[in-house]
Amino acid sequence: MNAHIAPVDLAKAYRLLNHGPTVLVSARHAGVDNVMAAAWACALDFRPPKVTVVLDKATRTRALIEASGQFVLQVPTAAQVDMTNAVGNVSLAEAPDKLARCGVELFAQDGVDMPFVAGCSAWLACRLIPEPHNQDAYDLFIGEVTAAWADTRVFRDGHWHFEDADPRWRSLHHVAGGHFYTIGDPLRAGAE
Amino acid sequence: MNAHIAPVDLAKAYRLLNHGPTVLVSARHAGVDNVMAAAWACALDFRPPKVTVVLDKATRTRALIEASGQFVLQVPTAAQVDMTNAVGNVSLAEAPDKLARCGVELFAQDGVDMPFVAGCSAWLACRLIPEPHNQDAYDLFIGEVTAAWADTRVFRDGHWHFEDADPRWRSLHHVAGGHFYTIGDPLRAGAE
Repeated sequence: MNAHIAPVDLAKAYRLLNHGPTVLVSARHAGVDNVMAAAWACALDFRPPKVTVVLDKATRTRALIEASGQFVLQVPTAAQVDMTNAVGNVSLAEAPDKLARCGVELFAQDGVDMPFVAGCSAWLACRLIPEPHNQDAYDLFIGEVTAAWADTRVFRDGHWHFEDADPRWRSLHHVAGGHFYTIGDPLRAGAE
Repeated sequence: MNAHIAPVDLAKAYRLLNHGPTVLVSARHAGVDNVMAAAWACALDFRPPKVTVVLDKATRTRALIEASGQFVLQVPTAAQVDMTNAVGNVSLAEAPDKLARCGVELFAQDGVDMPFVAGCSAWLACRLIPEPHNQDAYDLFIGEVTAAWADTRVFRDGHWHFEDADPRWRSLHHVAGGHFYTIGDPLRAGAE
């Protein structure tokens, strides 16, 4: 494992998503790995930490999650904007070499049988909390975060450090059609 | 109504939230108005547009939404960081003058009996889709967006224009404890 990657206290895991980044969703089942992009992912609870993510019925990643009962949310960086956009637009069903074609490099975390995307800033391993009505009616999936990690070059001591890191570490915030914003400058309430 | 405020096509309404801003949630019931901050709000569907928002059982705004069946999500600006943080930390139950104390100015939109927060960049009027299990088990509320508006100084023609607007119009992205980031620079996939 990359020496810069460190575990994140589960009590602070919500902070990895709290600022609303676009995420990558990855999953594995029966030897098949897939990765997709999702702007519609959100923190849901602090303790235990939970998340929501919207997964269209057309996605192969959704089928892998339904079959395996687990998934990873990871926070891609500005350096990964082309890969992030590509995995959101290429389907594994149509392109069996999707991950290679999109430039996705996977790595393993000890003790977790799921694919993690290299180069991201943070990773949340999640156990699916089955909610068939939400999944069927709204494409809405709920997960409990069971472990989290971050790259200490941009998240450490429970805080993002975008302002001190290389700009290539900034999170991506998708609007539409490949148009993203990166996260900007810190602003503290009551600072004036 | 402020001459800069224009309706947003419902097909584009998801773009007001897609980049993950912290929002203000407002509601009215039986003559009582309230406003709270929420970082855990997210787009859920395109057509009709739907949203999710997490509302703690301790909040008065939640009770107003459960009673009235409707709410507004609005996108506050960097200029409103102190107000946004204040409405997220002061409870109407403890401070009946909460809105005045926090510096919230409300306005009306024609034909909608809900309180809208002045000075924001965008507003989504929502009809609650009752889902008692989600509300009870997860504090998770689902709404259908019935109308949307934006301030054309920062959102027009279906697109955010943060890069051309005064920096005080940038959206807020809360991490924890009054620490926010503003949205940053545009980044287009495939631009290199």
